[in-house]
Amino acid sequence: MRALEEKILSEGRVLEGGVLQVGAFLNQLVDTAFTREMADDIASAFAGDGVTKVLTVETSGIMIAFATAAALGVPMVFAKKNKTSNLDGNLLTAEIHSFTHNNTYTAAVCADYIRPDDKILIVDDFLANGEALRGLIALVRSGGASVAGCAVQIEKGFQRGGDSLRESGVKVYSLAIIDEMSPDGGIVFRHP
Amino acid sequence: MRALEEKILSEGRVLEGGVLQVGAFLNQLVDTAFTREMADDIASAFAGDGVTKVLTVETSGIMIAFATAAALGVPMVFAKKNKTSNLDGNLLTAEIHSFTHNNTYTAAVCADYIRPDDKILIVDDFLANGEALRGLIALVRSGGASVAGCAVQIEKGFQRGGDSLRESGVKVYSLAIIDEMSPDGGIVFRHP
Repeated sequence: MRALEEKILSEGRVLEGGVLQVGAFLNQLVDTAFTREMADDIASAFAGDGVTKVLTVETSGIMIAFATAAALGVPMVFAKKNKTSNLDGNLLTAEIHSFTHNNTYTAAVCADYIRPDDKILIVDDFLANGEALRGLIALVRSGGASVAGCAVQIEKGFQRGGDSLRESGVKVYSLAIIDEMSPDGGIVFRHP
Repeated sequence: MRALEEKILSEGRVLEGGVLQVGAFLNQLVDTAFTREMADDIASAFAGDGVTKVLTVETSGIMIAFATAAALGVPMVFAKKNKTSNLDGNLLTAEIHSFTHNNTYTAAVCADYIRPDDKILIVDDFLANGEALRGLIALVRSGGASVAGCAVQIEKGFQRGGDSLRESGVKVYSLAIIDEMSPDGGIVFRHP
């Protein structure tokens, strides 16, 4: 999505350690109109896929997940992190390792909220190593539901998580794929 | 808002300890179309108030905050909990005590995201004792910005946080106010 690439170039900042800071428009101070444009783009990509719900894991993917679900006219669900004591009833859970924060957490959703006849679109803000998406895919399948695919705003292509998921047969749609970036150099986007 | 009261009666569950479980439509499995209707109602209530941004604190108020900001055509910001090390630059912070979880956390936003010329609408899913809203009001004012008011989906009127804020001169708009509830009895809504 050209408009997102331009926003990343004009408002994003590349920090040391492979961090792309986009809080100023994407995931902390959120440009709501632009988020809806991004959501419409994702919704178009999955329009024929029979999506029944959108799933994300808290926190920073919730805005794009909500907007995408609204665009598709379906509910959204978010998995909670390490809060299984707050949720009652049966849970679907997955252990997810975060390389960014160097920790492992349990993502949990009430089992009532993902049913065997659901076809789930998993949405997040970033895709790097793919651990979060892989965990959510396992969570969905543990509930007997199927995965329509995964969509993210920004994929760090150089960390290979997206390509690994694609090779495993999952439909992965990214609004922008960064193949190279460095604090002093530029950002190289992947184009088909 | 009559439609929300009806949803609470038909899909909510009153648990022991003053807990109202509305995860099935409001804040975990999220009815996106209904959330947008609720957001439109809040946006109408603040249409003439010059709101420049909507602020919430993670996590479960993010959906209604995003939808309200989108309806008003302004950005939304969310404060992070206890993650000040993840945020760079100057921060605006507030200590907030949660009676629900019996803990105290630090809510933080990058100072760049709330400017002195901002007029902030604070949005959350629930209002009980009012600690979260009071903390966010203090955070906004510490950045030199002004508060347009507070809006929530469900106010627990019997916990008095909303009335206390109103008495202090803050505009507080709640889509549903519950004055009485119990696991075996009914739910009594406040109407003007």
